[in-house]
Amino acid sequence: MEWEELARELSQTTDSKIVLLVMDGVGGLPAKGRSELEAARKPNLDELAKGGVCGVSDPVFMGITPGSGPAHLALFGYDPLKFQLGRGILEALGSGVEVGRNDLVARGNFATFKGGLIADRRAGRIPTEENVRICAYLNAHLPKRDGVEVEVFPGKEHRFVARFTAEGLADALTDADPQKEGKPRLPTSAIVPEAAKAAAIVNRFLDDLTDVLKGEPKANTALLRGFSKFPSIPTMQELFKIRPAAIANYPMYKGLAKLLGMTVMDVGGETADLFDSLEKSYKDYDFFYIHYKRTDSAGEDGKFDAKVAAIEALDKFIPRLVALNPDVLVVTSDHSTPSALSGHSWHPNPFVLVSITAGVDDVTEFTERACGKGLLGRFRALYAMPLMLAHSLKLKKFGA
Amino acid sequence: MEWEELARELSQTTDSKIVLLVMDGVGGLPAKGRSELEAARKPNLDELAKGGVCGVSDPVFMGITPGSGPAHLALFGYDPLKFQLGRGILEALGSGVEVGRNDLVARGNFATFKGGLIADRRAGRIPTEENVRICAYLNAHLPKRDGVEVEVFPGKEHRFVARFTAEGLADALTDADPQKEGKPRLPTSAIVPEAAKAAAIVNRFLDDLTDVLKGEPKANTALLRGFSKFPSIPTMQELFKIRPAAIANYPMYKGLAKLLGMTVMDVGGETADLFDSLEKSYKDYDFFYIHYKRTDSAGEDGKFDAKVAAIEALDKFIPRLVALNPDVLVVTSDHSTPSALSGHSWHPNPFVLVSITAGVDDVTEFTERACGKGLLGRFRALYAMPLMLAHSLKLKKFGA
Repeated sequence: MEWEELARELSQTTDSKIVLLVMDGVGGLPAKGRSELEAARKPNLDELAKGGVCGVSDPVFMGITPGSGPAHLALFGYDPLKFQLGRGILEALGSGVEVGRNDLVARGNFATFKGGLIADRRAGRIPTEENVRICAYLNAHLPKRDGVEVEVFPGKEHRFVARFTAEGLADALTDADPQKEGKPRLPTSAIVPEAAKAAAIVNRFLDDLTDVLKGEPKANTALLRGFSKFPSIPTMQELFKIRPAAIANYPMYKGLAKLLGMTVMDVGGETADLFDSLEKSYKDYDFFYIHYKRTDSAGEDGKFDAKVAAIEALDKFIPRLVALNPDVLVVTSDHSTPSALSGHSWHPNPFVLVSITAGVDDVTEFTERACGKGLLGRFRALYAMPLMLAHSLKLKKFGA
Repeated sequence: MEWEELARELSQTTDSKIVLLVMDGVGGLPAKGRSELEAARKPNLDELAKGGVCGVSDPVFMGITPGSGPAHLALFGYDPLKFQLGRGILEALGSGVEVGRNDLVARGNFATFKGGLIADRRAGRIPTEENVRICAYLNAHLPKRDGVEVEVFPGKEHRFVARFTAEGLADALTDADPQKEGKPRLPTSAIVPEAAKAAAIVNRFLDDLTDVLKGEPKANTALLRGFSKFPSIPTMQELFKIRPAAIANYPMYKGLAKLLGMTVMDVGGETADLFDSLEKSYKDYDFFYIHYKRTDSAGEDGKFDAKVAAIEALDKFIPRLVALNPDVLVVTSDHSTPSALSGHSWHPNPFVLVSITAGVDDVTEFTERACGKGLLGRFRALYAMPLMLAHSLKLKKFGA
C-alpha cells in the first residue's frame, strides 16, 4: 500500500489550517565557510526553528537533482517517480498556457527550412518580439480544420508552445524533430495505434504552418517535441480532503498548482502581495501554498549576496504568517539552488515545522547545518505532506 | 521508476574522478566504552570527517546483516534485494574461479559413500592438501563428454567448486544433496523444462566422479548445491557511464568487481600496493574502488586491538588519496564487523564524503557515534552511488 492509497483512506476534513511557505531554492553551499542561509540575518526564521522541529528533506532521493516540477510534486504529497509530467506540459505551464483535459501540448522551435532541409533548428534565435509577431500571425492565418483547434503561444527567442484541442488525442507521439541540421523535416509518428489521429493532426498543422510562413526569411518552419496530454493525476482534494489555495506569481508554479486542483490566487509581483493575498483568503481555504521565487533566481544567477538579501527580505514577512496562528506552518525549499553551482542541486532542503504538536529539538537556526541535527532527521520530501496533515489532525489512525 | 532506470537516464560521462575506499567491516561496537574506530589514533581519517560531510548507511535496511556480496552490491549502486547472486557464483568468485556467460557453477562437498548410502556429508573433513590432490586427479581423469567442459576447483577441507561450460545451461536446478546422512545419493532435477539439459550433464558428472573416485577411502562421491549461472546484471558502464577500476587483492572482491564490469587491477598483498596501484592507474579511469581487508579480518577473529591497529595502519595512507585531489572521495565500510561479535553485523556503516560541493556539518571524527550526527543522516547504502555521481556532476537533472 502506497502513501497515495493510504491518504485516500486516512485523510479527513477538519477546520485546521496548514501554511506551506516554499522559499524556492533556499538551500545552498558555503562560500568562505558560510552558506547563504548562514550568512543571512533572519531572526524570524530562526525563531521558527527555535519553536518548531527541524530536519532536511530530499526532493526525490539522495543525489538526484530535480526540476521544479518533480520537486514541487513531492512537497505536495505526490511521488515524483510515479507522477511524471511531460516536458510539453511543463513548458505550457511555465508559459502560462492553460491546458485542459482534451488538450495536447508540445514544445516548439521555429526553424529555418531551405532547399528541402532544416538549415537552422533555432531559426537563428530570432528575437522574442519577432516570435510574438509570428505567433499572432499564425493564430490568425492557419487554415481552420474540422473538429480541431490549434493555438501557438510565443516563448523566448525561437521557442513556442503549440496546443491542440480535439476529441480523442493521445500523446504517444515521436518528436517531430530531425535533431540535426542538414536533414529533411521529420513528421511525428504514432507510437501506439490510438495516437494515429493525433499524429495526423500534428503533421497537417506542421505542413500548414510551413505553408503560412513560407515568406519568412528565418522562422519558416517548426519542430515539435515532448508531446503531452493533461496528465492523469488525482487532485489534492481527492487525496487529502483539503481545500487548497496557491499563492504564487510565476506561471509554472501557478500552472502546476492548478493541475493539482488548487485554487490559484491572483497576486502581484511584490513579496508583500503574497502575504496580502494569504490574509485576504485565509478564512476560505485550509491549505496554503506560498511560493517565494527570489531565492531561487539569485541562486540560478550565481549571486550569493543577492540570495542572502532575498532571504533577509522574506524574513521580515514571517511575523505576518505567525500572526495568523496556523495549526501547521512549514518553511522549506522545493530543491536547493546553491549560488556556487548557479543551478538546482541534489542537496537536501532545510525544513522547519511549527505546530503545538511539533515536539522539541535543540535547533535554534534555520540553516542546512542546524536543520541536519533536528528531530525530523533526513527524509524524503514526499513525507512532508503526511507530516503536515498529521500535525493538523487531518489523518485518521491506520489500522486498529 | 527505480534508481536503476533513473541512473540510465540521468548519468553522463565527465572527466571528474571518484575514489571509494572500502574499509571492510570497519564499523564496530564499544569495548570499555570505545569502539575500534574511537580507540584508534587516525588523524587523517578525522581530517576527512572535518572537511567533508558524514552519515551512517545501512547496507540493506536496519537490522539486516549482509554478506560481502549484497553489502558491496549496495555500495556500487545495485539494490541488493533485487540483484541476488547465487551461492555458487559467490563461492566461485571467492575461490578465484573465473565464471563466463556460458558457465554454470555450484558449491561442492566431497562426501563418503558406503553401502549405497551417504555415510559422511563432509568426507571426514579431509585436509585441504588432500582436496587439492583429488581435484587435480579428477580434472585429469574425468571422462570427456561431448560439448561439455567440466572443471573442479579445490576449496578448504572438503569444499570445492564445480564449473560446467556448455551451450544452453540453466541454473533452475534442485540441490544434489540428500541433506542428511544415511540416505542414498540424490541427483539434481530440473525445476523448469529448460534446465533439463543442465540436470542431465550434472548428474552424469556426479556418476562419473563417483566412478573415478571409487578407490578413495573418504572422498568417494560429491554433493552439489547452489547451482548458479553468470547473473544477468547490468554493468556499471551501462548504468552509470563511468570507467570503473577495482583495486583489491582478495578473489571474492575482484570477482564481484569483474562481474560488474570493473577493470580489476593486479595488486600485491601489502597495503601500500593498493595506493601504488591507484596512483599508477589514476589517469585511466574515473571511478576507483579500493578494498582494504584487514579491518574485517581482525573483526572476524574477534581481535579488538588488531582491528584498531588495522585502522591506524590504513590511516597513514589517507594523505596519498587526498594528494590525488579526486572530485569525490568517500571512505566507508561495506558492513560492520564488530570484534565483539566476531562476524558481520547489521550496524550501520560510518560514511564520509569529501567534495567541494559536500556542504557542511559539525562532525570532526570518523567514528560511528560522530558520523551519526552528520548532515547525511542515516541512509541506505544504495544511495551512496547516486550521491557520489551527483557530487562529481555525473548526474543530469530529473524532470523540468
